[in-house]
Amino acid sequence: MDYPNDQAPGAPIRSGVPEHGRIPKYYAVKAQVAVLIDELGEGGLLPTERDLAERYEVARETVRQALRELLLEGRLRRQGRGTVVAGPKLEQPLSLASYTEGVRRQGRRPGRTLISLDRFPCPPALAAETGLERGEPVWHMERVLLADDERMGLESTYVAVARVPRLDSEFTPDSSFYAYLHDRLGIAFGDADERIETVLATPREALLIGTPPALPMLLIHRVSRDTAGQPLERVRTLYRGDRFSFTTHLGTARN
Amino acid sequence: MDYPNDQAPGAPIRSGVPEHGRIPKYYAVKAQVAVLIDELGEGGLLPTERDLAERYEVARETVRQALRELLLEGRLRRQGRGTVVAGPKLEQPLSLASYTEGVRRQGRRPGRTLISLDRFPCPPALAAETGLERGEPVWHMERVLLADDERMGLESTYVAVARVPRLDSEFTPDSSFYAYLHDRLGIAFGDADERIETVLATPREALLIGTPPALPMLLIHRVSRDTAGQPLERVRTLYRGDRFSFTTHLGTARN
Repeated sequence: MDYPNDQAPGAPIRSGVPEHGRIPKYYAVKAQVAVLIDELGEGGLLPTERDLAERYEVARETVRQALRELLLEGRLRRQGRGTVVAGPKLEQPLSLASYTEGVRRQGRRPGRTLISLDRFPCPPALAAETGLERGEPVWHMERVLLADDERMGLESTYVAVARVPRLDSEFTPDSSFYAYLHDRLGIAFGDADERIETVLATPREALLIGTPPALPMLLIHRVSRDTAGQPLERVRTLYRGDRFSFTTHLGTARN
Repeated sequence: MDYPNDQAPGAPIRSGVPEHGRIPKYYAVKAQVAVLIDELGEGGLLPTERDLAERYEVARETVRQALRELLLEGRLRRQGRGTVVAGPKLEQPLSLASYTEGVRRQGRRPGRTLISLDRFPCPPALAAETGLERGEPVWHMERVLLADDERMGLESTYVAVARVPRLDSEFTPDSSFYAYLHDRLGIAFGDADERIETVLATPREALLIGTPPALPMLLIHRVSRDTAGQPLERVRTLYRGDRFSFTTHLGTARN
């Protein structure tokens, strides 16, 4: 029998086209543009919507819908007034290592922009999740994540004021919080529980990250403890779904 | 300072509403329906689109867009002709354990439906990824994943025919492939590399899984080896983004 899936491993079977029945017209255009993307290669400039509409003999709105999905999936990106073929998604390891380390390992320059730093009494839900005392002072630090000045995600960190009393005066928000914890305060991570899901960007998040609203995002929840098992932080990190993937190595010893 | 985020930990800051500027009307409705969802609780019946449009004094199309996002995110689900509050997402551990085990652990009944089983010479890209010989016979088995008869995802497994020569005659496609490997053939998993990303369902995938087209999905790529380090399988599993999340425990020993 012939090989039924002549694409790269990991690509959808039959390019996503059902065995029976009709497919939406925009999807037929999307599949054709996907082939064009492979031919052009990273950085290649896509023809205009008008040109594509003429080439495939469809309405411009049909082309626009096809391009919208390819943009959401990170196969294309806007550049100035044009649309170009995007590079592969960044691969961030799922590990206790920081965002900073992960991005550096891929030859990109990590950065962060502070959005807000607040201090308030630990609410019940946060106390239940982390093991912090209800009502004890906690920091909430919100930062936009950057790689080579490109906005990549949005991170909310909750940490007890007792652990990092001078977070507001001593810590440089553009730097690695984990490096600060370790190098200045001698606090080392012991373990963490993470949960990964996909959500749509809210208008506020889309504005801060500079993505289209309702872009699918990867959301990672983390609750971490130090080497003595004491609660350390609760983090909510939103990563652009069109720019990030996460990798992990599984071994039997890890189950 | 007051607690700036009175929601559950992990919820978007300010319910996703930007500090400055206008928000789309549909999003204001979405935020109000989200509050209603919390009040109704799991299984609660949502008022009709017409009722919601009257209640919030907006067009029905505005309500429809708000509900569409809440459906995509898995906070609502269709039931018969109505719309009800969905339960929490299933939490599947990222581990070498099988889908079957993960679903059982959550008190759900796992199942699978065979879509296709093909045999073909290993193409170059698959050989490069897995370490299999180019041209050696491989199986491709495609199955829909079920939990309590609800369609949850779609799995493509590539495995050398030499490892499982009687896959077509001996294996019951509704059962666990990992249990078959272990119990019948004495093959045990050693380790695996996984990569997680978010993609949009193709029309074929949406048809097979029964989801709206372009629903954000979680896609997991896996390349696994047996305990002797020999290539075992290459799997592409698509999980409904509205029904699944993945959990992992990170320790320092794992880095």
